Amino acid sequence: MITALAGGVGAAKFLTGLVKLVRQEDLTVIVNTGDDIELHGLHISPDIDIVTYTLAGIVDEEKGWGINGDTLHCLQSLKNLGQETWFTLGDRDLATHIFRTAMLKKGKRLSEVTAEISHALGIKVAVLPMTNDPFETRIITAQGSIHFQEYLVKRGAIDEVRGVEFLGADHAKPADGVIETLMDSELIVVCPSNPIVSIGTILAVNGVRKALQETEARKLAVSPIVAGAPLKGPADKLLRGLGLEVSAFSVAKCFADFLDAFVIDAADASERGRLEELGLEVKVTNTIMRSLDDKVSLAKAVLEG
Amino acid sequence: MITALAGGVGAAKFLTGLVKLVRQEDLTVIVNTGDDIELHGLHISPDIDIVTYTLAGIVDEEKGWGINGDTLHCLQSLKNLGQETWFTLGDRDLATHIFRTAMLKKGKRLSEVTAEISHALGIKVAVLPMTNDPFETRIITAQGSIHFQEYLVKRGAIDEVRGVEFLGADHAKPADGVIETLMDSELIVVCPSNPIVSIGTILAVNGVRKALQETEARKLAVSPIVAGAPLKGPADKLLRGLGLEVSAFSVAKCFADFLDAFVIDAADASERGRLEELGLEVKVTNTIMRSLDDKVSLAKAVLEG
Repeated sequence: MITALAGGVGAAKFLTGLVKLVRQEDLTVIVNTGDDIELHGLHISPDIDIVTYTLAGIVDEEKGWGINGDTLHCLQSLKNLGQETWFTLGDRDLATHIFRTAMLKKGKRLSEVTAEISHALGIKVAVLPMTNDPFETRIITAQGSIHFQEYLVKRGAIDEVRGVEFLGADHAKPADGVIETLMDSELIVVCPSNPIVSIGTILAVNGVRKALQETEARKLAVSPIVAGAPLKGPADKLLRGLGLEVSAFSVAKCFADFLDAFVIDAADASERGRLEELGLEVKVTNTIMRSLDDKVSLAKAVLEG
Repeated sequence: MITALAGGVGAAKFLTGLVKLVRQEDLTVIVNTGDDIELHGLHISPDIDIVTYTLAGIVDEEKGWGINGDTLHCLQSLKNLGQETWFTLGDRDLATHIFRTAMLKKGKRLSEVTAEISHALGIKVAVLPMTNDPFETRIITAQGSIHFQEYLVKRGAIDEVRGVEFLGADHAKPADGVIETLMDSELIVVCPSNPIVSIGTILAVNGVRKALQETEARKLAVSPIVAGAPLKGPADKLLRGLGLEVSAFSVAKCFADFLDAFVIDAADASERGRLEELGLEVKVTNTIMRSLDDKVSLAKAVLEG
């Protein structure tokens, strides 16, 4: 049994490689829901959808999110109705959000709805939201606190980050199965996702960090920072905003309390010494995933690591 | 000032002709909402949408409903998610339902949302829902009471009609402006719509029938029954199910308490005597609307009638 902690695009790319090497049935993915947002009255779970669409083989690979070949007819009509459309929602993609929203309104839990969507998409990986409770990542900027999606997508991550807050974290319980799968796993992989707003959120759910410290599973993380810069997304701006160094080492420090081993890119081989001082085993490999081969090679290194 | 009482397709066709002869600003349409239904968690108002799409010139003219050239990508994906898709919802059309549902959830009234949609579609006709309150037309069949859309669309009107019920009618108040426009109009036209489930519903809203009896407006109705059969829809089955004759005369009787004049097709000229006995002026013309010319001619006959 393998469990992965995942954000969006980086994690999904890594998982694409992993499922070439392990049976989907043996993999559980715990996904960040701090990015979830209500738009047009619909409950959007961006990271869950990126993971499920990617595992189902229907993701728009060029963008890393959304459904391949999707159309934007509904969104254009929403724009004609005067609605803000900075968050792209394709017509096929909208079905997921409409379905999810309707099921939640009927009283189903997000974990149940996610399982139903995964099943319908033919995925055998268990995709678990980190929590079924409200949990909202907000970025503190000079203009005040704004939703993470507003910071990232609407405003293009241009604001200086003064802080990050997790609304609801105090009361968020892990979704059904999250603690159990962490305790029962043989291997837990922290995917190459944003350490603050993708993995940090999962760790902020009550009981998750403790389970990671206590489980007998081997725990590895793949650095999302290569040569001092994130492969994708605003991890550098967030780390810097929180007064942290932008480096693989800085990411490792976020997880050092529970991690056994850390996987870094060859470009960061010089970090080995500092990482070993944190008590971590260090694995150096190519972590940049351009092709499927890259993804499989990285997954192989992790499984061997 | 002209006010029309309207159901769906038949009314919309008639209104297409009417707006060629009168300024949109001088026309108010009070629309049936008894057909409204929640599907996929979205509030669908079929007759309002037929009227607004038609007046905006974007309706799928062949079907009489939906948006011309619309695609079904979202609906197909909802089907893949195991959802019932017997009610066709196009991608562009869905924007209307998503917008309406989100606005209602925010606490706006259906009349406000309808005005916003009309404005966005460039319509200057005032389109008013008959009520902002819950009002649900149900058909009593051998299998029990089912929603009108389930009777009509899902089951194709195959069930024997044993009765009709209007859930919520006891408490439904007219939407903002409905009574005022009836009292202030010079001419009120009952469109050629189903007398039971399109016009009967409007008349069942508290105070509407009384306002129609008391207003000084001239009141005409166009028969939706020609030569003993409805031009469209299940009016014959409903009339028969309620023990009523399927005829223009039978429709006129439903409105005789407030009507001044009744417009029938040349095919029903022999009804004149019976209709006059109800105290109605009778106007005989072609009521079958195949072309735009037919629609304009009928509207002209009504305006002159």
